[in-house]
Amino acid sequence: MEDKLAVLVIEDDQSIQGIVEDALIEGGFEPAIAASGEEALILLKGGAIKYRALVTDINLLGRINGWEIAKQAREIDPEFPVIYMTGAAADQWASHGVPNSVLLTKPFAPAQLVTAVSHLLNAGNPPSAPA
Amino acid sequence: MEDKLAVLVIEDDQSIQGIVEDALIEGGFEPAIAASGEEALILLKGGAIKYRALVTDINLLGRINGWEIAKQAREIDPEFPVIYMTGAAADQWASHGVPNSVLLTKPFAPAQLVTAVSHLLNAGNPPSAPA
Amino acid sequence: MEDKLAVLVIEDDQSIQGIVEDALIEGGFEPAIAASGEEALILLKGGAIKYRALVTDINLLGRINGWEIAKQAREIDPEFPVIYMTGAAADQWASHGVPNSVLLTKPFAPAQLVTAVSHLLNAGNPPSAPA
Amino acid sequence: MEDKLAVLVIEDDQSIQGIVEDALIEGGFEPAIAASGEEALILLKGGAIKYRALVTDINLLGRINGWEIAKQAREIDPEFPVIYMTGAAADQWASHGVPNSVLLTKPFAPAQLVTAVSHLLNAGNPPSAPA
Amino acid sequence: MEDKLAVLVIEDDQSIQGIVEDALIEGGFEPAIAASGEEALILLKGGAIKYRALVTDINLLGRINGWEIAKQAREIDPEFPVIYMTGAAADQWASHGVPNSVLLTKPFAPAQLVTAVSHLLNAGNPPSAPA
Amino acid sequence: MEDKLAVLVIEDDQSIQGIVEDALIEGGFEPAIAASGEEALILLKGGAIKYRALVTDINLLGRINGWEIAKQAREIDPEFPVIYMTGAAADQWASHGVPNSVLLTKPFAPAQLVTAVSHLLNAGNPPSAPA
Repeated sequence: MEDKLAVLVIEDDQSIQGIVEDALIEGGFEPAIAASGEEALILLKGGAIKYRALVTDINLLGRINGWEIAKQAREIDPEFPVIYMTGAAADQWASHGVPNSVLLTKPFAPAQLVTAVSHLLNAGNPPSAPA
Repeated sequence: MEDKLAVLVIEDDQSIQGIVEDALIEGGFEPAIAASGEEALILLKGGAIKYRALVTDINLLGRINGWEIAKQAREIDPEFPVIYMTGAAADQWASHGVPNSVLLTKPFAPAQLVTAVSHLLNAGNPPSAPA
Repeated sequence: MEDKLAVLVIEDDQSIQGIVEDALIEGGFEPAIAASGEEALILLKGGAIKYRALVTDINLLGRINGWEIAKQAREIDPEFPVIYMTGAAADQWASHGVPNSVLLTKPFAPAQLVTAVSHLLNAGNPPSAPA
Repeated sequence: MEDKLAVLVIEDDQSIQGIVEDALIEGGFEPAIAASGEEALILLKGGAIKYRALVTDINLLGRINGWEIAKQAREIDPEFPVIYMTGAAADQWASHGVPNSVLLTKPFAPAQLVTAVSHLLNAGNPPSAPA
Repeated sequence: MEDKLAVLVIEDDQSIQGIVEDALIEGGFEPAIAASGEEALILLKGGAIKYRALVTDINLLGRINGWEIAKQAREIDPEFPVIYMTGAAADQWASHGVPNSVLLTKPFAPAQLVTAVSHLLNAGNPPSAPA
Repeated sequence: MEDKLAVLVIEDDQSIQGIVEDALIEGGFEPAIAASGEEALILLKGGAIKYRALVTDINLLGRINGWEIAKQAREIDPEFPVIYMTGAAADQWASHGVPNSVLLTKPFAPAQLVTAVSHLLNAGNPPSAPA
């Protein structure tokens, strides 16, 4: 079981990058940091590494935001675990988030991130229509 | 308790309209039918009647589809209960649906619709970020 | 399977009594109406009939309210299904309700009541501490 | 939407058969009754009709019981909705039931059955490993 | 993201205090310890620090117990995350706990506490009436 | 609160054993490793130590597999938390797993295991029939 689970992180603020990276490594995941949505999409679609979850800020460098990245990730894999991190855009989650996603409002504790990623991965195939 | 709970239904197929209408009435709700997304938005924003839930087809007459209507309803009220009905677009739910919504794949039984509406209403304020 | 499941209902408003009674009967339950909390406690503790769920208004005739009745029902049986019905006291649920209970805000549709009772009964032994 | 959702019911007690059949029809489903597990398996595997859910007694005529039928149904379709009905074997559910199934203890109200079937169908693809 | 999330802990047993404090710090939270319910209420109502969750023993020094503190915290904020820790009073949770709370039975592992706090925080606005 | 919660782990691959052991210890649990299902049953039934959860591989040395061990553990205690770990047998979970269990697909991150164990323990008495 040497293969670690790769988690794609999109965050340009270096201090938060560091916290997220440390938390995921300590939880046993392998974070890959993308600085912009465009870069993240190349990684997601490249297929060299199979990412298992997306952890994304909302307001990103470049032209695409976190809501849009998550939609594209779900078009590739309808069950892709998605965690949004945001300080200001939390109230948009109800209209712009994808189903079965988690929103972490900044500031959050590293344990919240690790619990959210673990929980979504453990849930396996999330319901396509929870009722 | 004479006031009935108004449920906004967007569906242009008359046979499904009838089934949905009958099911909601039998469950004790008061359905209001809109034939297009544009008409539905006028009703939602008009405020003459306070709708308590949205039941919408995906492919609608006019220029806006069901995914878009639901987003606009959630911008007005982040906790608005949303039920999508679709035959062909079910695989888009994971990327285009709003969180805490229910997808009914056609054909469905009337009891599924009534259970879904009841369940979302009973849940009160749905979690802004379920984890 | 002739035995019907008895549901104890505490409600003094006769019009709501009627709606609740009809909804439960149509769902296949056997409602027993108590007009006050004191009367309800006598029925719950008497043991002549084994009630399977409690549906209670908050503001009751007599000295005990619905929050208190539910607590006493849970002291007898920690897994007793509890549904509160209220028009004015909904915001007290978070501090005065018992865990794993459902709050129906008046007005509600009969289907919401039947779904709530069914859902709590189907869940069997509700978690003693959901996490 | 003329196609009704077929639900396979395995129950040999005629009075319960009648109650289950009536409840499903009123909920808008199309029940198909099998008197034994062997007969049910032929129907499930025959493929002439696509069943959408299984409602089964535990102690069946013939050599296979309800626990076993449910396992075989899940081997054909890992997300097949399963509802067990039992009077005496409820305590075996935790060790013999399949994940994401519902157990109804006899006697139950018809609304509990309809809510359970609707709920499992609405959940779409149940999680392969809920956590 | 330098701000840590403050978690109010009410526990007078020093050995458990230490375990809870260490677990929360390692999870990235900032625990504040109160030795009595009275002290905790002063902190909650003082407003100098915005606490994000309550972790409380049931039997406290002073006149108010953990069940009562949680009710008061929920009256201030209906969505306040509440975790009870208890050795002896677990069977009272069903009648005295607040909805959407978690009960940890002593002894528990530190990871259970961190998971419970994270889970409740991630759930954002817990449902006001889950059904 | 010196007593640690014992978790029974059945795994013969030494590298995975080590990862599971380390993760549980860091989470504050006390893992006990059994190399075969037969050995695990002796420990479970021996009663010298009260195990609080089972973490088991599917394909085991000896004649009994992980699906079978979990069934036997649930016959002793219907609410026993069960976590399966598997690389190859994940698609059998829907038909061979016990209700309210978690499946971890190898490779998994240590945090997923700790979250799953914590989550099941926090849930206390899991529903005997979730609906």
